[in-house]
Amino acid sequence: MKEITIQAPATVANLVCGFDVLGMALEQPYDKMTVRLLDKPEVIITSLDGFPLPTDPALNTAGAPLLAMLEEPDLPGGPVGFEVLISKQIKPGSGIGSSAASAAGAVVAANHLLGNIFSKEDQVRFALFGEKVASGVKHADNIAPCIYGGITLIRSIFPLDIISIPAPPLHVTVVHPQIEVRTSDARQILRKEVLLKDAIRQWGNIGGLVAGFIKSDYELIGRSLEDVIIEPVRSMLIPGFDEVKQQCKEAGALGGGISGSGPSIFMLSKDAVTARRVEQVMKAIYERIGLAYHTYVTVVNQEGVKIVSSQ
Amino acid sequence: MKEITIQAPATVANLVCGFDVLGMALEQPYDKMTVRLLDKPEVIITSLDGFPLPTDPALNTAGAPLLAMLEEPDLPGGPVGFEVLISKQIKPGSGIGSSAASAAGAVVAANHLLGNIFSKEDQVRFALFGEKVASGVKHADNIAPCIYGGITLIRSIFPLDIISIPAPPLHVTVVHPQIEVRTSDARQILRKEVLLKDAIRQWGNIGGLVAGFIKSDYELIGRSLEDVIIEPVRSMLIPGFDEVKQQCKEAGALGGGISGSGPSIFMLSKDAVTARRVEQVMKAIYERIGLAYHTYVTVVNQEGVKIVSSQ
Repeated sequence: MKEITIQAPATVANLVCGFDVLGMALEQPYDKMTVRLLDKPEVIITSLDGFPLPTDPALNTAGAPLLAMLEEPDLPGGPVGFEVLISKQIKPGSGIGSSAASAAGAVVAANHLLGNIFSKEDQVRFALFGEKVASGVKHADNIAPCIYGGITLIRSIFPLDIISIPAPPLHVTVVHPQIEVRTSDARQILRKEVLLKDAIRQWGNIGGLVAGFIKSDYELIGRSLEDVIIEPVRSMLIPGFDEVKQQCKEAGALGGGISGSGPSIFMLSKDAVTARRVEQVMKAIYERIGLAYHTYVTVVNQEGVKIVSSQ
Repeated sequence: MKEITIQAPATVANLVCGFDVLGMALEQPYDKMTVRLLDKPEVIITSLDGFPLPTDPALNTAGAPLLAMLEEPDLPGGPVGFEVLISKQIKPGSGIGSSAASAAGAVVAANHLLGNIFSKEDQVRFALFGEKVASGVKHADNIAPCIYGGITLIRSIFPLDIISIPAPPLHVTVVHPQIEVRTSDARQILRKEVLLKDAIRQWGNIGGLVAGFIKSDYELIGRSLEDVIIEPVRSMLIPGFDEVKQQCKEAGALGGGISGSGPSIFMLSKDAVTARRVEQVMKAIYERIGLAYHTYVTVVNQEGVKIVSSQ
């Protein structure tokens, strides 16, 4: 195999109460990437659609993980390298895991070209170098669902411990108001300390959300989608947030909140009809506010990065 | 029905990472209580075994919940009251839910005498008045498992939201070193703020523990029994804690930690043989330290407060 083309899905990190620990992969949108095996130890990055990506691989979210992979001592065969051709559909800075898709997609594709020598955990470890480039922090809550599919819990990052959380069918509506929220800025406005009583409320909700997913209890999922720590601070950066949340719940959504560090907002629904109704609510709000936006109505992606073709 | 006798089980609150939200009922030990229906609106408390209980019902953990119950506007029939005869087996101050057993036992028994007019949630609400008397705080993490049985999650206390968490068979070993740790003192030494990074680690563990229970994943249960916030502070009040924890894990326990606010320490094991071996380890440590202790080897109680007889 000399060349492989994959789709790397968008992801929703945090899932409201699970800051830095929970994440979920989406069927739509996804990045498309082709990775070619080279016979020299180098990494070449090419943007296929005019997105201005850094071409120095050490500064590129797809390149940095591949450089880390090439430093592994026991790669098979002679010298290898990778050329990565990226067609980005997930807009950088949208809050639905754009950098994670590039990083995870490149790693999964490269691992296939090398004959599947790395475990999923190893692949997450490599892809984290891409998040470090993008936001300065090695957070795995987008990377893990992008590689594992479905909903994942990062129980621990050192040592890495990723748990797949089964869940009933969920429909996801996402609105991306076209303002820029940089992940690094969204992290800086968070306080380094939280009140113990708020932390207790948060861990009740995380326990409830995980139990709701595994027990297929939609009502419990809805009640647990509450965040008393991060959302009150970050939502101030997102025009229309409170309205979107309230009106979408009135329209039948189970609940939702900021996707990752924003500005995208996601809502979970039990069925497709509700998810479409929620989309209409979101559209009406941003039309009225007069802010450009984009919406997605989709479901949870169960397989993670998908191989489209190889040769 | 004029009189009812019940057993109210001991409970382990917190379950290491779930401070104030998780709890588990035990088969052993339990308090025995007889409650008699009176035709006057009063509450009489009698200790059957010489434990010096407060006889003013407003200051008694079994009495305060019954006084709250008697204030309900829609009690059936004429004026009613209760006489409570308590035979305490769960030592107050041991950290395995002694006050909760008195409160929950009295409420469940009284509710039966009234013809089961209150829901389990209502019963928890009444029993919380007992915890308020005992520790100054209405915490439900002992009350809920005592009334519901099994393992419970308090997702929220206002409004009250209690979730039963299914789990695989678990064997529990408890050691009660005979030193006094008052719940109110054990609360006071806690900081009011916690580091966000510690809170994140904690919610990873809570998610992991809940997932481990529901998925019957013993290894995940073991890995998730980690507390970076409360245990490092409270364990200093318990002589031998670090040794007990380390040596019990070496003896095969999945993990464990402080029961409630201590001084009891509990350990979970996959089978009875390991649970007995863990008991031997605990005994050896407190023999060497020269501190009086008591141990229990038991399993999770699935039904909560149990009715023994009624007439």
